[in-house]
Amino acid sequence: MNCIQKEITLPPKRRGFHLVTREIVEHLKELSEYSAGIAHIFICHTSASLTINENVSPEVRVDFESHFNELVPEEAPYYEHTLEGSDDMPAHIKASILGSSVAVPVKDGRLNLGTWQGIYLCEHRNHGGPRKLIVTIIGERKMK
Amino acid sequence: MNCIQKEITLPPKRRGFHLVTREIVEHLKELSEYSAGIAHIFICHTSASLTINENVSPEVRVDFESHFNELVPEEAPYYEHTLEGSDDMPAHIKASILGSSVAVPVKDGRLNLGTWQGIYLCEHRNHGGPRKLIVTIIGERKMK
Amino acid sequence: MNCIQKEITLPPKRRGFHLVTREIVEHLKELSEYSAGIAHIFICHTSASLTINENVSPEVRVDFESHFNELVPEEAPYYEHTLEGSDDMPAHIKASILGSSVAVPVKDGRLNLGTWQGIYLCEHRNHGGPRKLIVTIIGERKMK
Repeated sequence: MNCIQKEITLPPKRRGFHLVTREIVEHLKELSEYSAGIAHIFICHTSASLTINENVSPEVRVDFESHFNELVPEEAPYYEHTLEGSDDMPAHIKASILGSSVAVPVKDGRLNLGTWQGIYLCEHRNHGGPRKLIVTIIGERKMK
Repeated sequence: MNCIQKEITLPPKRRGFHLVTREIVEHLKELSEYSAGIAHIFICHTSASLTINENVSPEVRVDFESHFNELVPEEAPYYEHTLEGSDDMPAHIKASILGSSVAVPVKDGRLNLGTWQGIYLCEHRNHGGPRKLIVTIIGERKMK
Repeated sequence: MNCIQKEITLPPKRRGFHLVTREIVEHLKELSEYSAGIAHIFICHTSASLTINENVSPEVRVDFESHFNELVPEEAPYYEHTLEGSDDMPAHIKASILGSSVAVPVKDGRLNLGTWQGIYLCEHRNHGGPRKLIVTIIGERKMK
């Protein structure tokens, strides 16, 4: 059994839902050394989040953005935390609904996602900046 | 320390929330060998999800289905991804709100859930088919 | 590699969102022994939950409570599970939306949270009582 941990910084993305599986895996050369385990991917921010969803249709990501804007509207009359802009408080709530991490099974040196699954970075701010992820892989190392 | 990984296929279930703790544990004979650790249960799909909730009252599961249908309605006017049926896009959104995995502490050879906790398979499609889970257990093996 | 597991009981808190990072870490002396890994924090209840969000402004936690009360109202006409009080069924749904666990990277003997991140205990009942957490740390022990 073994554990590695890596920091990955993703460049700024526009507000919305972005498929980032490939971008993450490119930073994880060590993944190929694990025969079985878990990859835990954590975002170190409170106004962006991670989720797993459909990896083909760009319309799915557009509809996520539309629906989350309905679910957590800007300028709700009861918000008290409004100093950092009308997109800030909704961003915090969206981040907690979706979650700050995903954990994915690792098998035979790769993420063992379903055929249609990809990892989304969910950018909830209008101008979010670069986003730092911490990936921790825990599992069995392959025999060499 | 040790890690095992198993694939489990659950037979098709009707749209709604289903208590599946027993169904999952029946496939995990190896669980009894772990004194402490984590069991990570992952669903390899984007229109069904996993969550942990109340394990007694069937009405709770009915109310989950009713409320999620309010929270993420079918045929919202802004959906663009509509080709796969009116239940498809809501299914994707519900799946991300609830999440694609649960992780449960393992203790003394069993899932260390609270008294009232059970694992739900949340089937968001009208005709979802069988659902594949990947269970990864990481922990300390018992002395024999 | 090594694994420890601890039970922590948090005293009763009023309905709402509470920053509990320090309260949890105070019970985790062993954390200092891990150079890298994951801390999995699990709540053994179905009407309270855990999430990670902003750790400075108390207004953020107030707005979470306000918004979740909009998102999951009491006394929705379709609720069937009503015997345990009007706050009970909403509490179950809120708990699943937010989730029953958080997993945080461990680095150099501490939780590797972002600058603005803290762990929230989300108490969804009016009179919730003490809440039991199980923390499992899996990772590499430091050399001594």
